[in-house]
Amino acid sequence: MNDTGRYLDRMRSTAPLIHNITNYVAMNIMANVLLAAGAAPAMVHAREEVGDFAALSQALTVNIGTLDPAWAEAMATAAQVMQQAGRPWVLDPVGVGATRFRQDVCAQLLALRPSVIRGNASEVLALAGLSAGGRGPETTDTVDAAEAAAADLAQRMGGVVAVSGPVDYITDGKTAYRVANGHPMMTRVTALGCSLNGVIGAFAVGQPVLEATVAALAYYGLAGEQAAATAIGPGAFGAAFLDRLYAITPEDLTAGAMVTPA
Amino acid sequence: MNDTGRYLDRMRSTAPLIHNITNYVAMNIMANVLLAAGAAPAMVHAREEVGDFAALSQALTVNIGTLDPAWAEAMATAAQVMQQAGRPWVLDPVGVGATRFRQDVCAQLLALRPSVIRGNASEVLALAGLSAGGRGPETTDTVDAAEAAAADLAQRMGGVVAVSGPVDYITDGKTAYRVANGHPMMTRVTALGCSLNGVIGAFAVGQPVLEATVAALAYYGLAGEQAAATAIGPGAFGAAFLDRLYAITPEDLTAGAMVTPA
Amino acid sequence: MNDTGRYLDRMRSTAPLIHNITNYVAMNIMANVLLAAGAAPAMVHAREEVGDFAALSQALTVNIGTLDPAWAEAMATAAQVMQQAGRPWVLDPVGVGATRFRQDVCAQLLALRPSVIRGNASEVLALAGLSAGGRGPETTDTVDAAEAAAADLAQRMGGVVAVSGPVDYITDGKTAYRVANGHPMMTRVTALGCSLNGVIGAFAVGQPVLEATVAALAYYGLAGEQAAATAIGPGAFGAAFLDRLYAITPEDLTAGAMVTPA
Repeated sequence: MNDTGRYLDRMRSTAPLIHNITNYVAMNIMANVLLAAGAAPAMVHAREEVGDFAALSQALTVNIGTLDPAWAEAMATAAQVMQQAGRPWVLDPVGVGATRFRQDVCAQLLALRPSVIRGNASEVLALAGLSAGGRGPETTDTVDAAEAAAADLAQRMGGVVAVSGPVDYITDGKTAYRVANGHPMMTRVTALGCSLNGVIGAFAVGQPVLEATVAALAYYGLAGEQAAATAIGPGAFGAAFLDRLYAITPEDLTAGAMVTPA
Repeated sequence: MNDTGRYLDRMRSTAPLIHNITNYVAMNIMANVLLAAGAAPAMVHAREEVGDFAALSQALTVNIGTLDPAWAEAMATAAQVMQQAGRPWVLDPVGVGATRFRQDVCAQLLALRPSVIRGNASEVLALAGLSAGGRGPETTDTVDAAEAAAADLAQRMGGVVAVSGPVDYITDGKTAYRVANGHPMMTRVTALGCSLNGVIGAFAVGQPVLEATVAALAYYGLAGEQAAATAIGPGAFGAAFLDRLYAITPEDLTAGAMVTPA
Repeated sequence: MNDTGRYLDRMRSTAPLIHNITNYVAMNIMANVLLAAGAAPAMVHAREEVGDFAALSQALTVNIGTLDPAWAEAMATAAQVMQQAGRPWVLDPVGVGATRFRQDVCAQLLALRPSVIRGNASEVLALAGLSAGGRGPETTDTVDAAEAAAADLAQRMGGVVAVSGPVDYITDGKTAYRVANGHPMMTRVTALGCSLNGVIGAFAVGQPVLEATVAALAYYGLAGEQAAATAIGPGAFGAAFLDRLYAITPEDLTAGAMVTPA
């Protein structure tokens, strides 16, 4: 992958409408991340309209952070609309290993074949049935340990699996990449992982899903690196991160992306 | 309207309690906007208490952003309390054109005669029955195109309609104003429109609703202009915007307001 | 209490997982406060998993801000798990005096013996049955006026009661402390009180609850003082506050804590 920046350029040129069914912690920052990046976010979840709204949207993201049964039903309804329309949808299985409830909901969502699954190593291992995984939203496993599980999951699902960590691993089960962009301060601001799902969804609109996901992760990590260069703590970092998402050009991304074949 | 600043001064002198039933994306920033401006926010929605709490509040705001049926019922209950008490309440019909569900809920809320409706051009057109309107929370129509619909809606409802845009249009169906304050960066931070409803509600407590709404929009737009003068991106802008809401004095507002009769 | 900083040091050394059932306004900032301080936050509320998740957590916080019956049930379920496991849980009775619904829910939660109750003076008075209390989340009473009620409540409950205000008052019904750290700007950013509950919960893991609560309040107030020294308004303050929570060392806390016996 050479010209990483063109994926950002194309995303911004269409400013896609991204429908997000996410957790209460993430909603505000996720919307701000998408606006800063150049996409158009919307959050809609009621049974009465979630399918109608999905049909208007160019991509969907689903995050099980503050789950309950009504929201799980909305997720499945919207995901089904996207699957049938052949439009991308992204699943973030937050804390899937923590409770039986999360495992059951994720099993239902996997059957709707997400275009991209993004999680930390513990979540990907738990989703692949290989680990009890993590404590809540945190990982207790390394990215390396989740590579085989990610490839297996991608093949079974016919989609892309992205394992977030110090160096991300992204695979469609055949081809794989590593993205070394990012900064530890990103783990000190809540819901930055959740918000990344929206950026992945936006990049995946009308672009090859594997490469779009890689480019989204490089863009996001690059913004984190640049923000951390000036921020003295997580408060300043949170604001600077949005400023960098807004300011990074396609040329900046092509120059700064640290993508290698895996 | 000359002395715009006095509306801000009177609002701050009473620090009114504003009851907000709004979307999950907006709740935090809306509370921060109200605190920075000098009002007292509260968010309450349960059927078991929403009417009791409305009865304690000086104004109510309703925003249908992340709607579901239980919340729609709470909105109607609280709005009815305000209508019967003769206290102001503000309706923000976010994305009303996007789904049938939103249209039905808005029809019920319109029957409770909001004191102020604030939306973008597409939302006001959709509410007036003249357009399918927007894609989610975004507008695809111009403010000019919504002026006649706004006046018609204001007359039918016996209230004020404010159309947000590069230049806002505010009318009670007889008198109309334009407010030219504001900055495009305000559209790159989520829920600033939603949060404005709270400021309108606070200004409308004990003051003439049309002029109070105009003054609130001028104040809000002025804070946006001032924040944009120093901010390099939406992250810095979000913080600076709260700082300006906090710092602007009544004299600043009178001097900086760009209000003209329409 | 001399070595206040060691409570911070011990908290950071274990980075405890804190389960929070809180209001929609607070969720994002509360998670960021806990991450900045050095703990691990999680927000989980569904009946289907709230007990399972509480069992994985080292402390629980409950805040009745945007209450409804399903959430009240989740609070009771999780609190019961913590009570039976002998792990700390913190109750924040936001606006308990405002409605009958809040009073009923708090009565049920009090029966589950919170380790710490933290509220403003009006809330503590209302909880002790001595006042109709406050208007929503605001206080209309002074900390002094709530001291006897706090001591009474602490004795009845067998826990700690912390009354937040310009000078905080913390008691277990026998011993009492005052904490003079803090800054008025903290009342201009929403949900900082709510977020403090998480810090109290984190400090209380494996440490004596009364002293841990005192140390948490001193740490929080010190961060507020330091942030206010540079911030020109509530927007800058919000970011600086997180930066200070992140930067304050145990030595800084021991040096800056203003704790006195009451």
